[in-house]
Amino acid sequence: MERGLKMDKVTVIVFSGEMDKVMAAFNIAIGAASSGMEVTMLFTFWGLNVLRKDKIGSKSKGILQRIFTFLNRGGTENLPMSRFNMFGLGPWMMKLLMKRYSMPGVRQLYSTAKELGVRMIACTITMGVMGLGKEDLVEDVDEFAGVITYIKDAREAKINLFV
Amino acid sequence: MERGLKMDKVTVIVFSGEMDKVMAAFNIAIGAASSGMEVTMLFTFWGLNVLRKDKIGSKSKGILQRIFTFLNRGGTENLPMSRFNMFGLGPWMMKLLMKRYSMPGVRQLYSTAKELGVRMIACTITMGVMGLGKEDLVEDVDEFAGVITYIKDAREAKINLFV
Amino acid sequence: MERGLKMDKVTVIVFSGEMDKVMAAFNIAIGAASSGMEVTMLFTFWGLNVLRKDKIGSKSKGILQRIFTFLNRGGTENLPMSRFNMFGLGPWMMKLLMKRYSMPGVRQLYSTAKELGVRMIACTITMGVMGLGKEDLVEDVDEFAGVITYIKDAREAKINLFV
Repeated sequence: MERGLKMDKVTVIVFSGEMDKVMAAFNIAIGAASSGMEVTMLFTFWGLNVLRKDKIGSKSKGILQRIFTFLNRGGTENLPMSRFNMFGLGPWMMKLLMKRYSMPGVRQLYSTAKELGVRMIACTITMGVMGLGKEDLVEDVDEFAGVITYIKDAREAKINLFV
Repeated sequence: MERGLKMDKVTVIVFSGEMDKVMAAFNIAIGAASSGMEVTMLFTFWGLNVLRKDKIGSKSKGILQRIFTFLNRGGTENLPMSRFNMFGLGPWMMKLLMKRYSMPGVRQLYSTAKELGVRMIACTITMGVMGLGKEDLVEDVDEFAGVITYIKDAREAKINLFV
Repeated sequence: MERGLKMDKVTVIVFSGEMDKVMAAFNIAIGAASSGMEVTMLFTFWGLNVLRKDKIGSKSKGILQRIFTFLNRGGTENLPMSRFNMFGLGPWMMKLLMKRYSMPGVRQLYSTAKELGVRMIACTITMGVMGLGKEDLVEDVDEFAGVITYIKDAREAKINLFV
């Protein structure tokens, strides 16, 4: 997809790492990209879990970060729900229902968004605190950047959301 | 209220079904409509609970959806709080405090918003997964639509929020 | 910092009172102000906790508000986390990690935002329900206002977020 100054822009900050919220964020991003808009998603804090590889090395990390990494499992298939998580029963039930309604899961949504040219940015300010290095994230992240990059994009965008 | 191309637009995605967040969303919508703006609210995921009838039939639904419907009680009077829900004690306390300060509850806010011409859209993408059919929602929903309709509105709106 | 009609505007509604979300809100506000934008933060519901003095008097308040005030501790140093709060262990761990990465805490972020001219508004509609009077909030709140003031700002802003 051609990127130019004349395309209307959209930014979505993905702060939350919960499956349901992340799905909403991707659906908006995909809808906007399908409508010919230029979409940027900025993953920060818990949202970084979406970009995490399923298995991440804990080498060279301190004990606090290891505990945190253990609690805060990432990867598109391991996201909790914002309500009725019930130790994983909720997401399992929702995935079954989604399958029945032919709704794509987070991994599929991510691929579709990438195919449509949605730009994925990992927030460098929060990666450290979340115990994540570049090697812990999936290979096809488009950019590692901070808030100034976001502001530049959002300032000229038609739609800006915080999820 | 007359609707035209020249009115400034507002969109609010109501993703959350918690009483406090929903109240915030309605207060913004009502404030904007009172200021002469054209407001659209898109209810999706847990936000669909706001549009649910108090009693909904569980006929012809699978077991998973019935469990989900049982857990996820809807209706404007049954929304939980995002914090200090305490099995319903929190909302009860907050409702008492709201009464003391003459703050309208969700049902009242919904009516006021409707009177001011706020357009209520139920998200068709998530209704199925939430176990809801059109017959489960209140009669005065203005539209059943998905993300493309939202993007079209949001693209030309002055204020877009995700609650 | 000079304020004029020609500066691009940003509004951030801080609804949530959780440390991580509040930090995200401040980082955006500070980034925007550093980029020469005119930023307004509207603190409402749990977000009002950010503006609370550490100790607040409970004189002349009803029993419900006292219980609520007791549960809902405020002050920039006492905010919980949106996930893994674990009765305060989460925020403690995160603060340690933040220190290691030289990330400023909420109090520091608040001061920096003030220095950059970010306008802080306390939402008068929700102060009562949250059991807060003007005397309970820090002295340097810029304005006490409601949704109409917010709509006026947001309507002409380039970036509007709900956190």
